[in-house]
Amino acid sequence: MSNRKYTIVFQPSGLRGKVADGATILNAARQLGAGLESICGGKGTCGKCKIRIEEGYFAKYGISSSMKSVVTRDEVNAKFLTKQQLKQNYRLACQTRVNGGDVVIFVPEESRKGQQVVRKEATARKIKLNPAVRKYCVELKPASLDDSVGDFERLQSGLKKKFKLDGLVIDYPVLLKLQNTIRRGLWQVTVSIWKNREIVDVEAGEVKSGYGLAVDIGTTTVAGYLCDLNTGEVIVTEAMMNPQVAYGEDVMSRIGYAAKEKGGLKKLNDAIIKGLNQLVKDIAKKAGIKRSDIIDMTVVGNTCIHHLFLNINPQYLGKAPFSPAIHHSVDVKARDIGITIADSAYIHVLPIEAGFVGADNVGVLIAEEPYNQDEMLLIIDIGTNGELILGNRKRLMSSSCATGPAFEGAEIRHGMRAAAGAIEKLKIDRKTKEVQFKVIGNEKWNTEDKKIGARGICGSGIFDAAAQMFTAGIIDKGGRFNMKVKSPRLRLNGNREPEFVIAWAKETAINHDIVICQKDIRAIQLAKGAMYSGAKIMMKRMGVTKIDRVILAGAFGSYIDKTSAAVIGLFPDCDPKFVYAVGNAAGDGARIALLNVAKRDEADLWARRVEYIELTLEPEFNRVFTKALNFPHAEDKFPSLKGILPDDR
Amino acid sequence: MSNRKYTIVFQPSGLRGKVADGATILNAARQLGAGLESICGGKGTCGKCKIRIEEGYFAKYGISSSMKSVVTRDEVNAKFLTKQQLKQNYRLACQTRVNGGDVVIFVPEESRKGQQVVRKEATARKIKLNPAVRKYCVELKPASLDDSVGDFERLQSGLKKKFKLDGLVIDYPVLLKLQNTIRRGLWQVTVSIWKNREIVDVEAGEVKSGYGLAVDIGTTTVAGYLCDLNTGEVIVTEAMMNPQVAYGEDVMSRIGYAAKEKGGLKKLNDAIIKGLNQLVKDIAKKAGIKRSDIIDMTVVGNTCIHHLFLNINPQYLGKAPFSPAIHHSVDVKARDIGITIADSAYIHVLPIEAGFVGADNVGVLIAEEPYNQDEMLLIIDIGTNGELILGNRKRLMSSSCATGPAFEGAEIRHGMRAAAGAIEKLKIDRKTKEVQFKVIGNEKWNTEDKKIGARGICGSGIFDAAAQMFTAGIIDKGGRFNMKVKSPRLRLNGNREPEFVIAWAKETAINHDIVICQKDIRAIQLAKGAMYSGAKIMMKRMGVTKIDRVILAGAFGSYIDKTSAAVIGLFPDCDPKFVYAVGNAAGDGARIALLNVAKRDEADLWARRVEYIELTLEPEFNRVFTKALNFPHAEDKFPSLKGILPDDR
Repeated sequence: MSNRKYTIVFQPSGLRGKVADGATILNAARQLGAGLESICGGKGTCGKCKIRIEEGYFAKYGISSSMKSVVTRDEVNAKFLTKQQLKQNYRLACQTRVNGGDVVIFVPEESRKGQQVVRKEATARKIKLNPAVRKYCVELKPASLDDSVGDFERLQSGLKKKFKLDGLVIDYPVLLKLQNTIRRGLWQVTVSIWKNREIVDVEAGEVKSGYGLAVDIGTTTVAGYLCDLNTGEVIVTEAMMNPQVAYGEDVMSRIGYAAKEKGGLKKLNDAIIKGLNQLVKDIAKKAGIKRSDIIDMTVVGNTCIHHLFLNINPQYLGKAPFSPAIHHSVDVKARDIGITIADSAYIHVLPIEAGFVGADNVGVLIAEEPYNQDEMLLIIDIGTNGELILGNRKRLMSSSCATGPAFEGAEIRHGMRAAAGAIEKLKIDRKTKEVQFKVIGNEKWNTEDKKIGARGICGSGIFDAAAQMFTAGIIDKGGRFNMKVKSPRLRLNGNREPEFVIAWAKETAINHDIVICQKDIRAIQLAKGAMYSGAKIMMKRMGVTKIDRVILAGAFGSYIDKTSAAVIGLFPDCDPKFVYAVGNAAGDGARIALLNVAKRDEADLWARRVEYIELTLEPEFNRVFTKALNFPHAEDKFPSLKGILPDDR
Repeated sequence: MSNRKYTIVFQPSGLRGKVADGATILNAARQLGAGLESICGGKGTCGKCKIRIEEGYFAKYGISSSMKSVVTRDEVNAKFLTKQQLKQNYRLACQTRVNGGDVVIFVPEESRKGQQVVRKEATARKIKLNPAVRKYCVELKPASLDDSVGDFERLQSGLKKKFKLDGLVIDYPVLLKLQNTIRRGLWQVTVSIWKNREIVDVEAGEVKSGYGLAVDIGTTTVAGYLCDLNTGEVIVTEAMMNPQVAYGEDVMSRIGYAAKEKGGLKKLNDAIIKGLNQLVKDIAKKAGIKRSDIIDMTVVGNTCIHHLFLNINPQYLGKAPFSPAIHHSVDVKARDIGITIADSAYIHVLPIEAGFVGADNVGVLIAEEPYNQDEMLLIIDIGTNGELILGNRKRLMSSSCATGPAFEGAEIRHGMRAAAGAIEKLKIDRKTKEVQFKVIGNEKWNTEDKKIGARGICGSGIFDAAAQMFTAGIIDKGGRFNMKVKSPRLRLNGNREPEFVIAWAKETAINHDIVICQKDIRAIQLAKGAMYSGAKIMMKRMGVTKIDRVILAGAFGSYIDKTSAAVIGLFPDCDPKFVYAVGNAAGDGARIALLNVAKRDEADLWARRVEYIELTLEPEFNRVFTKALNFPHAEDKFPSLKGILPDDR
């Protein structure tokens, strides 16, 4: 490696630029914004960043030669690429480095990062209106030589007289503009007061409108809901990808990046702050308001996201005993973290429950209020990290389990995120074993609409695939392929391993068959088994044998087929009538906390009261987990699925 | 005026640089740091910025010509310069502009800015130790899988258990470093807590030492007192010139600069913040501590200084009804105003009483506590703006009067600030009318020590001059020169106006006689008359005829001769035994508020309780003022000065 820089060109986009000698192709793609897919963040474990070297010379990794323009680690490449692909110069971008020469890289269709479909609409909920920030308009007696008291004291006594507000303090930036604003308003001003305690804005004259922003920072997507603080109405919803994705798709890879890379924390924090400021700008523009008109903001996110947003290094979340910096909610000035809403506005970050049950889960808690119910609820938030809440007004437990990224399309041969071209739903005919599927971006199913060719399968499609293959008898309850089934779709691949064709090459945009293989089924079993075991262990601890309702929280929960989820055994038996999705409940929780300040205290209270169960510390976990790997379970009965399960269990 | 720049050279320093066409020589001097004297800040009213144009061509102001390299306003120059000086190309730097050519400027000795002698030592006072910020050392139970509560909650419960501290919040920057600090200290940390309420610092292990900084920002000088918060001891005292002096010597010129110049407020605020940060750096270096070890700070200053420090435009203080932005004390985060002490430290700015009675006066109040005394006190703080407090535990009044800058050496023919070369004390023999004087920088009086030649007279010298000329019969009680007195020192000048020679040319460094003229005496009369009238009106309002004690507050008060002050009639009659100086009581007030948090509430309480009298609104002011112009007064009796006043009154 030298200090020199070399030109790298990405095809077919034609993007080009200079990168340092020794840079990985993945980092080069990030630097130039080439939109290269990567789920593991460059660790060589997801295999999603396949590229083809078009021009350049190879060298084995570690062997430096001025004649070679790239070096690569073929032992890692071999795990994800066939011999033929290797011969055609396909490699993983994260395992391949620029080495003493210019290169041209081709990014195949399947490795191109699609614009993920952001599915985080606000759910219609009735929310009591009691915002933390309220506006008060007051007319002041003009200063005169007989009465030349300071402007702040004049304002104080005006507010006390008219609204009985006492003991108010004023935030520093508001003090700076107080005198001019009062005089511009001809001694009439509108003040914004936070929690009846602190003046956080002053405007000339009478101003009625007031805005707040609720933000749900997901690992992958970020959603912002601009609300009218007078009506509670959502005025603008705007979503974007979390820009931190460039540094790792899942929280563990971001924790690693922050803990180990020099300046890693700063990069991750800068990315989300800059991204949020763009979101704020877009939202304000859509609403036709100034950014400084936003006088309150709430934020939810998982514990890692919470730390990164606050610029706290999440390093201790990544290793036992997984201690967060703080559990309590945090009220921080927007200016202190660089968010460009009103200078004096507070940002309320909801509390977290434990190292892996974050403020997003607390958002779900205050949105669904299990602590006010008699029925026994199981709330499931499905993601790379699964989060579970079990209980009712008597007792409440939470736990989290590492489902792995299978539900988000990683570690699945043809898995991908929910972007255009992803198979999101599918059906397998029990008799003919023929497949029908629906692709994101098309309005109709595959037989009728071929506008966008399939590129892979996203999470909801993977749920369907496993459930349908199971009910069609293609796999058994242990997840093994039944090779006796007669279908051209069921076959052995080059390595003599079974696979089932979901989409034929001609139905795709990537020119080869999209299949589900044995390894994919195992990944799904591990993921769903972890969720099931979590619920099972909590039920046992609570002495509960029956769940009254299952609530699927999270945007993802709205898109999966609840019967598919029940059939694969994502959760213990429950009447399908009482299984339902509630949409982005975490985001709704942020909105609820924005509009009703009393819910913030409720969140702090319940975040502490809920009993967190560390599943991996349960001695019986392995035994419970092993049985939960079966479809839907090795022993448990599912009376609610009578007629749906293949052998009518 | 063009967009071009021209070279300007200052002699004898040799400083040179490029300045914009059209810049005044005074601004050019500021820009290059040439150290040119100016008291009025460039308004052409003090006449202190005399310079000689060595090379360059003249043009009348307003006439542009490419042949001319400077333009000047001779009608203003003529007020301060003799015809001969004008012929020798002397001009006022503030009235002369670069105009289309390079120039060489000679700065005569008398116009060179001396390093003012800063006289703001902390006074020995007994202060109860009860600081706002206290340190607590606590050992925490290390986190484990069984007990993985957040670090902040762990710290909270540790502090609650050991010190019964409850309901603590943590400031954002402290939260950022909490986890690493706890682990670096092997689960033992020392936290700094502000007002038993907010954690403002965390340090690894046990740390006992804690530091606070009390700052007195004067119009001219700034003093900082670094205190040990455990002992109350002053560890380092450091003073500097207020860098705002470059934009105007008195508060009115700075208000004008902030109100009218584009970016004026920013320049004035930047100047003091940058200056204070240098002061903090110097102090920390002297004490051998880090700047971030300073965890609390208090500030006093007059109302204009208070506003400029907080970056509030003082424009409304400059016009009726003179409303300040805020009277209350202000607690502002150091980081919000850019002061580089501990990030989370608060800066407590003491309250102000009225538009012209500032936080410095409140500092005097809590230092002297007239509200706890039975005796009738008159507290005088002498400066460009005189401040008066009258009263005792029964009732308290304050007022302020514009004395003008005479006491600081401005508007006095040979007046100058208290810098090396200033005559600070003088005696006139009642018989021979011979003068003895003492120059700052010399150890002995003029007859014995001539190391440093006299350059002018500073405030304390002016007091002596007026008192001694009066007692020696050179001027009468009306301030008129008595030309019958036989002395070579008493003479008529070129304009047939009387003047008295204090120092002969040969005794000076400026090569001409230093004199007191009729105009000088008038300026002193106006200044002292304003103070006397203020006291008189307050006494009348309070129904008081006799003052028990006169307290001279302010550094200046420590250097004037109290008999001279009594003789010229700075205040009504009082037994000299009970007239005394208390040094920089404003600075002491800052120190008291730093070390005893209860005194901050006392300050807020008394700043509101003291009755502010707007003297200019008193209908009898003019009548009272006219009588107070006499030495010591037209009618009042001075039994305490028997044997000292010329006619034994």
